[in-house]
Amino acid sequence: MLIAFNNEKRKPWLLVGVSLFNKENNMSNHEKFMQMAIDLAEYNVREGQGGPFGAVIVKDGMVLARSANKVVPNNDPTAHAEVSAIRLACQELGTYSLAGCEIYTSCEPCPMCLGAIYWARIDKIYYANTKADAAEIGFDDHFIYQELDLPMSERRLPVVQMMRNEALGAFKLWSESEGKTEY
Amino acid sequence: MLIAFNNEKRKPWLLVGVSLFNKENNMSNHEKFMQMAIDLAEYNVREGQGGPFGAVIVKDGMVLARSANKVVPNNDPTAHAEVSAIRLACQELGTYSLAGCEIYTSCEPCPMCLGAIYWARIDKIYYANTKADAAEIGFDDHFIYQELDLPMSERRLPVVQMMRNEALGAFKLWSESEGKTEY
Repeated sequence: MLIAFNNEKRKPWLLVGVSLFNKENNMSNHEKFMQMAIDLAEYNVREGQGGPFGAVIVKDGMVLARSANKVVPNNDPTAHAEVSAIRLACQELGTYSLAGCEIYTSCEPCPMCLGAIYWARIDKIYYANTKADAAEIGFDDHFIYQELDLPMSERRLPVVQMMRNEALGAFKLWSESEGKTEY
Repeated sequence: MLIAFNNEKRKPWLLVGVSLFNKENNMSNHEKFMQMAIDLAEYNVREGQGGPFGAVIVKDGMVLARSANKVVPNNDPTAHAEVSAIRLACQELGTYSLAGCEIYTSCEPCPMCLGAIYWARIDKIYYANTKADAAEIGFDDHFIYQELDLPMSERRLPVVQMMRNEALGAFKLWSESEGKTEY
């Protein structure tokens, strides 16, 4: 299955692959993809690029895209490894759907990334570290899960509804428009 | 408070503002910002650019960024209006934190966007249409909320844990690294 790695003509190997090459003879394909995600996470920390998170998206045994967490270097709070890899994979395929793809992520996805994985229609998630492991080193998304479970009026983040009548017009417009791309 | 709109020297008015100019004399500032989000949503449908969703991010009474839903034109399943506006606002400020900002979104945020709003540290959410309204026109994020509430083993999307021991090394590396940017 080495073809999965060598076929990426437009994506030369990142330096992070060193540990993979040393170990790969004894690894399953699943393990190789996860090791790649872990290597991205470690490389990110070593290079001072950001948090210890990496994600790899695979289709038909081939790596489509991979990314570490890019929140700090990109000034983008949404640039978690999973979201970044999803965006890259979609660019690679030229579509907004990753149906038929699987994601390998070095840590259990947060609610934002889980949402992104669902919207991207990814088929399966493999993860390594747990959200409890992440909380122990200071990355705690538990409060987001708690907030999502609360009625809006009880959340820490204030939420106010207004102007629903005015906004319904946009939805009506969508319902009535022809030739739209449903997604 | 017109200064909030006229001061944007680097961001000329979008054509979507026509309805706003007609109504603004009788509108509060909150209503003006929400109307802007609604206008973006309507404009998006009229121009065939994508779904009927718009979001505006405001700081100190000034519009920092705004975006409609860009999933289809950008081939990016994460490019909901809120996520896109967050990315733009962060680029504008040159930081990954939108503490001190408020978001006006034409529809109740989905779990992905809510997660993004929490990670971006936005202070307050204003929304117009509800997720039930969105479901009625075919945008149903209810299944994501349901999935998040289920234990992993019962979710429709298969999730597999593997190689936690190998991945913990990246977290250890982070814990021990000096000079890192905590976010």
